[in-house]
Amino acid sequence: MKDFFNYEVIAECPHTRARVARMSTPHGIIETPCFMPVGTQATVKAMAPFELEMLGARIILSNAYHLYLRPGVDIIEKAGGLHGFMGWDRAILTDSGGFQVFSLASLRNVSDDGVEFQSYLDGSRHFLTPASVMAVEESLGSDIAMCFDECTSYPISEEDARRATLRTIRWAMLCKQSHSRPDQALFGIIQGSVFPELRRLCGEALVDMDFPGYGIGGLAVGEPKRMMYDVLELMDQLLPRSKPRYLMGVGHPLDMVEAIALGVDMFDCVLPTRNARNGSVLTSRGMLNVRRQELKDDLSPLDPKCNCYVCKNFSRAYIRHLHKAGEILASRLCTWHNLHFMLELAREARRTIMDGSFPQLLEYCRKVFGDETD
Amino acid sequence: MKDFFNYEVIAECPHTRARVARMSTPHGIIETPCFMPVGTQATVKAMAPFELEMLGARIILSNAYHLYLRPGVDIIEKAGGLHGFMGWDRAILTDSGGFQVFSLASLRNVSDDGVEFQSYLDGSRHFLTPASVMAVEESLGSDIAMCFDECTSYPISEEDARRATLRTIRWAMLCKQSHSRPDQALFGIIQGSVFPELRRLCGEALVDMDFPGYGIGGLAVGEPKRMMYDVLELMDQLLPRSKPRYLMGVGHPLDMVEAIALGVDMFDCVLPTRNARNGSVLTSRGMLNVRRQELKDDLSPLDPKCNCYVCKNFSRAYIRHLHKAGEILASRLCTWHNLHFMLELAREARRTIMDGSFPQLLEYCRKVFGDETD
Ligand SMILES: [Zn+2]
Ligand SMILES: [Zn+2]
Repeated sequence: MKDFFNYEVIAECPHTRARVARMSTPHGIIETPCFMPVGTQATVKAMAPFELEMLGARIILSNAYHLYLRPGVDIIEKAGGLHGFMGWDRAILTDSGGFQVFSLASLRNVSDDGVEFQSYLDGSRHFLTPASVMAVEESLGSDIAMCFDECTSYPISEEDARRATLRTIRWAMLCKQSHSRPDQALFGIIQGSVFPELRRLCGEALVDMDFPGYGIGGLAVGEPKRMMYDVLELMDQLLPRSKPRYLMGVGHPLDMVEAIALGVDMFDCVLPTRNARNGSVLTSRGMLNVRRQELKDDLSPLDPKCNCYVCKNFSRAYIRHLHKAGEILASRLCTWHNLHFMLELAREARRTIMDGSFPQLLEYCRKVFGDETD
Repeated sequence: MKDFFNYEVIAECPHTRARVARMSTPHGIIETPCFMPVGTQATVKAMAPFELEMLGARIILSNAYHLYLRPGVDIIEKAGGLHGFMGWDRAILTDSGGFQVFSLASLRNVSDDGVEFQSYLDGSRHFLTPASVMAVEESLGSDIAMCFDECTSYPISEEDARRATLRTIRWAMLCKQSHSRPDQALFGIIQGSVFPELRRLCGEALVDMDFPGYGIGGLAVGEPKRMMYDVLELMDQLLPRSKPRYLMGVGHPLDMVEAIALGVDMFDCVLPTRNARNGSVLTSRGMLNVRRQELKDDLSPLDPKCNCYVCKNFSRAYIRHLHKAGEILASRLCTWHNLHFMLELAREARRTIMDGSFPQLLEYCRKVFGDETD
């Protein structure tokens, strides 16, 4: 494992718990903190692989559950794994699909052994276990695989959360036992909802299992922001500083920077890409919906401070026109810009952690994006 | 005009009426025969400008009627014309919208002065005249503008066709009189449906008006292929060899090559891009729909003989998966490949006209695409 995967902290923020690290994988080195564009269906929506490379993305996220259901693991394996199938030769992290099984699937039936559910695509019945999910992720050949976990919704009773947490711990052990691919790092996932005792229980158990990295799951599912930050503070105390931490599904600009300040390294979120398709873009002055009537004649770029391809070549008026006309290029340009924004924000975090000015970045994000969260 | 626009035949096919020419415009030189990707709404659907450049497109088509209705001419003019608005600095030809006025608009009311119609977008009333259409095209700033014409459907009575043809001749004269922008070439459009006498009448009248180029309109609207080719043969006799000929709306691979053999230089068609979005791709062995079930495990490229970005990087199985999942990248990749196919076919036509082997290309296209036309 050490040969294939390594994480090394290279700088720490003198003011916060933030750090910069180099994470090496079989498909390249990733500097953290990093934002991972989401490619659930083996494509980052609206983007081609070469464009993600142009944007400087070093790792993207995909999803074992979705790819298992469609197109199926066999064809991806035959194509040489997910990298070959989708034409992306930088790093990939696959989520196991715990979140999707528990949020999308109808008629699910959970036991300590696994989950039986019906496909949302064709109603077919499936039974996933920790071992079978490991087999799927190994076939996909991602650089980082996530354990199969039971993801809870919010709010939830402490009793239900405890049951899910205990099952997540048990499944983490089973995943670790059945995982065998040496060129794939298996990360544990810490659950426990907003209950400190459960988070501590799960965190300590998984630290004992000595995973090469840890996902923090079950957050940003509707709980107050303060509770999320409290969990992250607790995680920072529990988790070894020598291993990467991945806050799953979180990628609002302010949440990301706040979490970086609490020692988190990795992020993913569908919102920058999903919002882009609705015309909502991230700018240095906050969110902007480019479909707004008053932008009809606005020949300035989406964000005057942005130096991405989109902002250097196209106006708000043009992009608004594309949205109104239902053109694919509308989604492409807004996605491109939003991903650039998130990747640039992660780069900015790394830069400012290195030079000691990270608190100013945090302050700036609070000012610009503070009203929009919670 | 001579300074801004020039057309020079540089080679003629020894076996057919085909020729290769260099056409210079304020936004670059175009070698003909050429295929023009269609960008009706100021975007070639699913493509970014830099990709069209990568594909070697030298000229694209847009549409004065659509852009007049949305987003409106004012904002485009404010953006420095269509080139600036859409971020494309190679050549643009704008169709006037005659075809759209007569095929899309409801409640239209045609007189010898112009057409009154209701917008298909919001029901607003508009009155377009030859002079007002010229003003629109001049504001758009395309390199080549088309006259405002009355485009007929098929079948049509000779009497109705005669009325539309006479009006088209009258409007061509009015367009020429009101057109004033020296850096924009104005092409006449020859109508007359499938009636040789009307085609001759219109052709001779417009040749007398001495336009720098000629569109051949009202074809590929449902008439038998043989009738289209007969009209093209007649046009070849009537039109000066020293000026470019543009067969409007035609771009099936075989039709294009047959028309090149009859002396046509320029083509446009929405089908390569529209079909692409439905998964239908052009290959060296004919049409292929990539959504077909039996391609589920097919790891070969869309066309093994194609050297485009798509065929070098992605499999049929992957592109099929993208279509099934409703992903934007599906439309992008198939559009990219189909445009590459059409642009490469035009290049191949130029190459073979130069080296004397054009009849073999024609024969090949008849064999591969012959069953699909008519
Ligand atoms: Zn930008
Ligand atoms: Zn191709």
